[in-house]
Amino acid sequence: MKVLLVFAHPEPHSLNTALRDVAVAELEAQGHEVRVTDLYAEGWKAQVDRADFPAWPADQRLAVAAASNAAFAEGTLTSDVAAEIEKLLWADALILQFPLWWYAMPAILKGWVDRVYAYGFAYGVGEHSDERWGDRFGEGTLAGKRAMLVVTAGGWEAHYSPRGVNGPIDDLLFPINHGILYYPGYDVLPPFVAYRVDRFGPADFEATAEDLRGRMRTLFDVAPIPYRAQNGGDYLIPSMQLKPGLERHAATGFALHLDQGSAAAEVKPAA
Amino acid sequence: MKVLLVFAHPEPHSLNTALRDVAVAELEAQGHEVRVTDLYAEGWKAQVDRADFPAWPADQRLAVAAASNAAFAEGTLTSDVAAEIEKLLWADALILQFPLWWYAMPAILKGWVDRVYAYGFAYGVGEHSDERWGDRFGEGTLAGKRAMLVVTAGGWEAHYSPRGVNGPIDDLLFPINHGILYYPGYDVLPPFVAYRVDRFGPADFEATAEDLRGRMRTLFDVAPIPYRAQNGGDYLIPSMQLKPGLERHAATGFALHLDQGSAAAEVKPAA
Repeated sequence: MKVLLVFAHPEPHSLNTALRDVAVAELEAQGHEVRVTDLYAEGWKAQVDRADFPAWPADQRLAVAAASNAAFAEGTLTSDVAAEIEKLLWADALILQFPLWWYAMPAILKGWVDRVYAYGFAYGVGEHSDERWGDRFGEGTLAGKRAMLVVTAGGWEAHYSPRGVNGPIDDLLFPINHGILYYPGYDVLPPFVAYRVDRFGPADFEATAEDLRGRMRTLFDVAPIPYRAQNGGDYLIPSMQLKPGLERHAATGFALHLDQGSAAAEVKPAA
Repeated sequence: MKVLLVFAHPEPHSLNTALRDVAVAELEAQGHEVRVTDLYAEGWKAQVDRADFPAWPADQRLAVAAASNAAFAEGTLTSDVAAEIEKLLWADALILQFPLWWYAMPAILKGWVDRVYAYGFAYGVGEHSDERWGDRFGEGTLAGKRAMLVVTAGGWEAHYSPRGVNGPIDDLLFPINHGILYYPGYDVLPPFVAYRVDRFGPADFEATAEDLRGRMRTLFDVAPIPYRAQNGGDYLIPSMQLKPGLERHAATGFALHLDQGSAAAEVKPAA
């Protein structure tokens, strides 16, 4: 199979780089074809601005979604963005690897999402009707492919546990897993998260590397997080609210959007 | 009082810019002193990299937290970052205004956080002991000041409601409100969120502008979101997990970290 790994760390000799190399080596050992987008090494432009839409009239107000829509339709996206879209279409699986900075992805990776996720490609896809609200959340351009986060965090695992002060890691990653990966159609796998990485010694590294190798070996086998498909009947249209009574046990917040009846939901999907 | 508004939108003639001008005008009409950091207009550098730490030895591996710590302690942060830190210390209140892109802030604003939130300034502050775990989540350099988000979203308000497919807006903003603003000490106010902004007509704009003026008039009066102070006795140390039994009604996920006994928690704090 084909795997794209998008990598966001500024230091070529970092723990993150070492883990990336472990992942790539294991994937290749399994016979997969791997491409890496190394955002820092490639000097990725982080911010969305007028330069992203060279065909947009200079005297016209920049409406980002409209400009993105026109540029995608007309093939006038910049070459760096077009190349990433081509890689996403090529890959059977996408891995985003990054250090968790301020409970979110680093700016350069957010800028990859903001720029590469063009209107007509990652959003603004499909029809709106009484039965459908676009192809998103389980449907879309990237449906049938898999995606997974590989994350490092400085804090303790307990601090990211269900009662931890940082908030549960699954909730903190929900805007990415559900909002960025599930949205355009990916089946989203439970994330790989390494904690307390600032205190890693050689034994910690080797144990984490071995866990990561295991996750790479099961990349195409492990059950995805059982998010509910938007157009699958669980949500009201057009309010897009979960219909009453679908949750089996008390859930609030993000946990509502898991299909609790699925086998995968019985096992807590992360950390 | 003194207010800093950090603004992240690429188009000078956008709805966001118009709302920003409404907010600034109302704050000034109330007698406040206002400074604006316009990230796009100022060409803000979004990504953290080695250039942020000019005193860090060129032949040494870049460890971001350590480099940030040294640069803050030794006064060798770059001038753009140092200027923002000075503004944060100057301001009694901070407003972050941005369009919600992919359920998070635009990359350029995330890069403002990643770069300006230096070690020793916004994190790595205070002692760790059996009774304290650093000055954070309710304590820290910026304690005593207020912070608030002003956000625009393309989607419908119902889609961000407690059962909405996007996830509840309060949970989606938790990594920012709690993880970025409450962490270094800010009292965090309920956010101002405008929905369906891509469909705004003049009447929508004027109604939203009037709501925003109201929020600006009460900037120093409205009750903050009642997050639990980390070192206030509600959390175990060092696991930083909420002690059992503190929640009054069933809550999971981010809602656990609200003090449900407070008056402010009775009113749902957003949207």
